[in-house]
Amino acid sequence: MKQRLLTPGPTPVPEETLLDLARPVFYHRSAEFRQVLAEVLADLQYVFCTKNPVLPLTSSGTGALEAAIVNCLPPGSKAICLIAGRFGERWRSLCKAFGIEAVSVTVPWGQSVQPEQLSRALADHPDALAVCTTLSETSTGAAHDIAAFGKITVSSRALLLVDAISGLCAMECRTDDWHIDVCVTGSQKALMLPPGLAFLSVSDKAWKAIDGNPGPRTFYFDLKKARAKLETPDTPYTPAHTLVRALRVSLKRIRAEGIENLWARQARTAAAARAGFQALGLEVFAKQPADGLTVVKMPPGIDSTELLTKLEKKYGMKLANGQDEIKGKVIRLAHMGYIDQFDMLTGIAGVELVLKEMGHPVEAGKGVAAAQRELARDM
Amino acid sequence: MKQRLLTPGPTPVPEETLLDLARPVFYHRSAEFRQVLAEVLADLQYVFCTKNPVLPLTSSGTGALEAAIVNCLPPGSKAICLIAGRFGERWRSLCKAFGIEAVSVTVPWGQSVQPEQLSRALADHPDALAVCTTLSETSTGAAHDIAAFGKITVSSRALLLVDAISGLCAMECRTDDWHIDVCVTGSQKALMLPPGLAFLSVSDKAWKAIDGNPGPRTFYFDLKKARAKLETPDTPYTPAHTLVRALRVSLKRIRAEGIENLWARQARTAAAARAGFQALGLEVFAKQPADGLTVVKMPPGIDSTELLTKLEKKYGMKLANGQDEIKGKVIRLAHMGYIDQFDMLTGIAGVELVLKEMGHPVEAGKGVAAAQRELARDM
Repeated sequence: MKQRLLTPGPTPVPEETLLDLARPVFYHRSAEFRQVLAEVLADLQYVFCTKNPVLPLTSSGTGALEAAIVNCLPPGSKAICLIAGRFGERWRSLCKAFGIEAVSVTVPWGQSVQPEQLSRALADHPDALAVCTTLSETSTGAAHDIAAFGKITVSSRALLLVDAISGLCAMECRTDDWHIDVCVTGSQKALMLPPGLAFLSVSDKAWKAIDGNPGPRTFYFDLKKARAKLETPDTPYTPAHTLVRALRVSLKRIRAEGIENLWARQARTAAAARAGFQALGLEVFAKQPADGLTVVKMPPGIDSTELLTKLEKKYGMKLANGQDEIKGKVIRLAHMGYIDQFDMLTGIAGVELVLKEMGHPVEAGKGVAAAQRELARDM
Repeated sequence: MKQRLLTPGPTPVPEETLLDLARPVFYHRSAEFRQVLAEVLADLQYVFCTKNPVLPLTSSGTGALEAAIVNCLPPGSKAICLIAGRFGERWRSLCKAFGIEAVSVTVPWGQSVQPEQLSRALADHPDALAVCTTLSETSTGAAHDIAAFGKITVSSRALLLVDAISGLCAMECRTDDWHIDVCVTGSQKALMLPPGLAFLSVSDKAWKAIDGNPGPRTFYFDLKKARAKLETPDTPYTPAHTLVRALRVSLKRIRAEGIENLWARQARTAAAARAGFQALGLEVFAKQPADGLTVVKMPPGIDSTELLTKLEKKYGMKLANGQDEIKGKVIRLAHMGYIDQFDMLTGIAGVELVLKEMGHPVEAGKGVAAAQRELARDM
């Protein structure tokens, strides 16, 4: 049976990128790799919309979040964590692990922290050295208004640290214009690569904090060492260099489309996904939804674990379950990276069929038709 | 021109492993991945020669060295670092970064630390909580007598932490029999995979130290979290799972040969490489050489940077230069993983030709013939 991976990371990888991964291994301290790395870092600056350096790390996205925390924040300092789900919580756990006081601004899962909440928290905690947030909260499908957050933090001493792991290249993200100080992403989401690499951009304001941070309390994730290697360019330790070479292929695809065109396409696909699920009577979980995935609640009597198992066993289609408190209650359909609008339609088609098989009253075709109408709108 | 990668990491990857890397991406929280990971971890226990768990990390080898240090050693504690080159020095740098007092036992590059030196250091520093050493010092090609070190540390309170990054599967390494408490390796050496993964085994004695270490002072490299996921098996954060899947293919190759047969083959290849270079009048740099690479000094008037550039440009053959203080003075030829005895012969053939071109008096064929005689000895 044909298999379809429709999860919000790892995501499918374009065929030409996969073939690049099968090319023979080459030496990493070589002109060839320096050329590849220079191209990839330039293309990353383009997709991050930043003039600041983008640093590569060989780790999962969490490794890069750790790098942001340990480099920017000395122990005993304070950070405001905006928490709307599992990945906002990860920022808090990271602060805790490194002896940083985390002030939590929490909203129920499915909601997004509002700019006024951040303003109040900053007024209450003018000594906070950072605000940690998520562009797209992968656990709930909710987006944050990072542009609005940036307008608030830019005039404060606090750095704006953004987990854009499932957001970057899946929705609008203007690192410099929005005053994001450290923007973090991972390779296995909208960048269309397997997991193994993470990237982060660092603003001048963040470098000032990093240079002023007595330390390091890290060796592997020391961003000053990574910065020192940028001119070559090179990396302090052996990077996952065949992944870097393959990333070049995926990034060329994004370059060819143009990042603003990609954002517009993502927004349209996301709107269509919501329209499709809503036409089936399913409620979108996030009040302020992201463009890279859609999370929908199950109707009464339908367990998402059961639905997803059937979808996988009968149709070879892999969507993600809810995590933690919403496991069994929602499904998460990704539409980012190499998962395009037609793959999204396919996902809705699969869900329709399985809901029907499970005895839920749905009119077959209603969801895909509604999604398709939305895709065709204003054309 | 045909390209040949003969460097001590990254090393060439078998074709069937490369093809595995081109397979479509799959979901990492799935029965399929758990099955793959379980097989890989079992095969790693086999190649480590350990009954203890082997933990996977998505990082370079240095990340796993950091994991060993931060998990086993609280700040303010003391470790003895046995330093015979760049990677022994890395242990010391790691200790320094994390506020651990490093007692250095240093020998000149090319030599190996002797067991008596360790005994004396331990007698002088009975409060040392760890001894950090390298199985194969990749910068010099020297080996350490880890079996002898283990006989000393086993009856002390100190843990034996071994960087076996370029040693494991390139030469004999019996983790349990030799009383290695934490044995570290990386994916891009004798395990025949691109870089991106690292692995470490942890003994009961090391777990006791880790459990007693107030902390964590790490999040990403927290070994207790990794241990908690072993039963599934799973990983705390998204692993480079397509690399794990491909590692299964490379490990099956090692399983099929048998680890002791592999060690014997490696020892024979290394002896042949030394015989070949010596027949050309080149001196082996390491007094106590490792089996996975051979480092030889350049004759007077020959700069290794120039030789290696010619070798690469004219013959497509990539060997490694010396690092730091011996850059330009030695060449490093790897013969580990997928670089077998015939590839080693090829490397010597290339060096012979280029030495001749550079005006050095060598008798063409003398090196390869001597190496070949050694390969054929006792057959």
